[in-house]
Amino acid sequence: MQKIHAAITAVNGYVPEYVLTNKELETMVDTNDEWITSRTGIKERRILKGEGLATSDMAVPAVEGLLKKRGISAEEIELIIFCTTTPDMPFPATANILADKIGAKNAWGYDLQAACSGFVFGLATGASFIESGRYTKVLVVGGDKMSSIINYQDRATCIIFGDGCGCALLEPNTEGYGIIDSICKTDGSGRNFLNMKAGGSLRPASHETVDANEHYAYQEGQTVFKFAVTNMAEVAADIMERNQLQSEDVAWLVPHQANKRIIDATANRMGLSSDKVIINIERYGNTTNGTIPLCLWEWEDKFKKGDNIVLAAFGGGFTWGSVYLKWAY
Amino acid sequence: MQKIHAAITAVNGYVPEYVLTNKELETMVDTNDEWITSRTGIKERRILKGEGLATSDMAVPAVEGLLKKRGISAEEIELIIFCTTTPDMPFPATANILADKIGAKNAWGYDLQAACSGFVFGLATGASFIESGRYTKVLVVGGDKMSSIINYQDRATCIIFGDGCGCALLEPNTEGYGIIDSICKTDGSGRNFLNMKAGGSLRPASHETVDANEHYAYQEGQTVFKFAVTNMAEVAADIMERNQLQSEDVAWLVPHQANKRIIDATANRMGLSSDKVIINIERYGNTTNGTIPLCLWEWEDKFKKGDNIVLAAFGGGFTWGSVYLKWAY
Repeated sequence: MQKIHAAITAVNGYVPEYVLTNKELETMVDTNDEWITSRTGIKERRILKGEGLATSDMAVPAVEGLLKKRGISAEEIELIIFCTTTPDMPFPATANILADKIGAKNAWGYDLQAACSGFVFGLATGASFIESGRYTKVLVVGGDKMSSIINYQDRATCIIFGDGCGCALLEPNTEGYGIIDSICKTDGSGRNFLNMKAGGSLRPASHETVDANEHYAYQEGQTVFKFAVTNMAEVAADIMERNQLQSEDVAWLVPHQANKRIIDATANRMGLSSDKVIINIERYGNTTNGTIPLCLWEWEDKFKKGDNIVLAAFGGGFTWGSVYLKWAY
Repeated sequence: MQKIHAAITAVNGYVPEYVLTNKELETMVDTNDEWITSRTGIKERRILKGEGLATSDMAVPAVEGLLKKRGISAEEIELIIFCTTTPDMPFPATANILADKIGAKNAWGYDLQAACSGFVFGLATGASFIESGRYTKVLVVGGDKMSSIINYQDRATCIIFGDGCGCALLEPNTEGYGIIDSICKTDGSGRNFLNMKAGGSLRPASHETVDANEHYAYQEGQTVFKFAVTNMAEVAADIMERNQLQSEDVAWLVPHQANKRIIDATANRMGLSSDKVIINIERYGNTTNGTIPLCLWEWEDKFKKGDNIVLAAFGGGFTWGSVYLKWAY
């Protein structure tokens, strides 16, 4: 029997309506459009506004759209892996909330936390469930309401992050399409440079932690940038080498959207021309777990069956990883 | 080729030294030893005391002990799935922090959030990685510093929960030992009855959420009890039926330790006598993700190679599930 691969058979995405432009940020913190654009490539990002709305509220339209595209009902989903750094609540899992909201009565699921590499790690995990032969419809969701953990007085972070959510359905494929390989890495010594200090068991929420702004994402940009540039490029090059892929074999690079310069460095290392590199950071910023599925969603129409696609991510942890897949439709 | 199963090849656990007895709780809230014991079966629980200590600080000794038992180095671990509801920080993942602290330089990993069913879901996930053939050493950790999210003025919860951490190593087995089957379920409509309201994207931490005690575990005990009794018993019975297991075939039931009466109902439904049911709730209370691996650790010496063991859990989400395994050593 031909080996079972986990193929992406549908993708979808959702971004909230409200557009936070560099111009508006200029009125909030000491920054300007030219500085943000040249350093990060970001022009605007989306923000989920409105009382009582959380990450699952972006996942619902994203997943409902995916089910419609694929022509299946929510009851057919067996497992939901919800990759997020901003779950609706610390517990229960947002995967469970999403399942309830969309009527995925037969799905179990959980939240996966690996910061900006979450969706890549989630795909690797979902692929294992499919490859094991036990599951045939696994939904991997990546989404974050980053605005819920951003300090809009901290210009180091508020210019970077945005809200959004994407998703991909994994199904078995025995014709050689789907996820062929994945390389995932972590280095926890990076935890001091990119984190959210309070709200966990180390520093439970208190008036002191709120006053100290410890419930916001904290980033030492320069250090993170250095690690990201090196490691995201390296893991993408590694997966090419391990699978004997030359530059000309790769149809698309789908990189995590943290910073245009990190993306460029990765593409360079892979020897790819810019027309093969998917970039939407100028419109959405860094949506953390959302970036890669949002790219897949927006470029879906351009993918051809059999395209060799490399995903690459880097994020808090540090975590980083790459997935190599053959597009299945 | 014989099918690859994921076998547990080592287990270990760690509980902190400080013992919080029912007697001490009597001085803190309006309760008494007799009431707690008769309703929950709990006599005492462990609490991780000390500045700057979090969930990973219990995982370190647990995992280091496991590695020693198994005679392998930390560098041999390929993947760490850290099942926790009380991560050290909202991000990065505690799995990454643990990897760094123990020197697991070649492991990637992430946190898995599924409340009290986390360890069962983590085993099912780890098993898929092994069954897929991609991995040969997957560490599944279950641990929580529940004292970091417990309001010690709320007698509905403070009598129940404790701190602790356990872990299991999964390796491939082609002789029929290991995890044979798993059934996992969720019902997100249960999110209102057992949750932690603030600290996520729905209600970010603020002075208001701190004042409203929304950073503590909240439980509507009676509703949760009803769902738990029914579903934990049902899923355990289901996995027996699906694998043609009669009561006499089952050597041990390893149940989540939330409440002695829920455990008894599950054992009854499975037709098991009490000597086959592993219970340590009287000493540790409900350690959330820690309960099942702590039971495996404490009973390890009594298990025999080939023993049919059924794990069963129920928790926030709601989430519930069961794993059937043949003990491998």
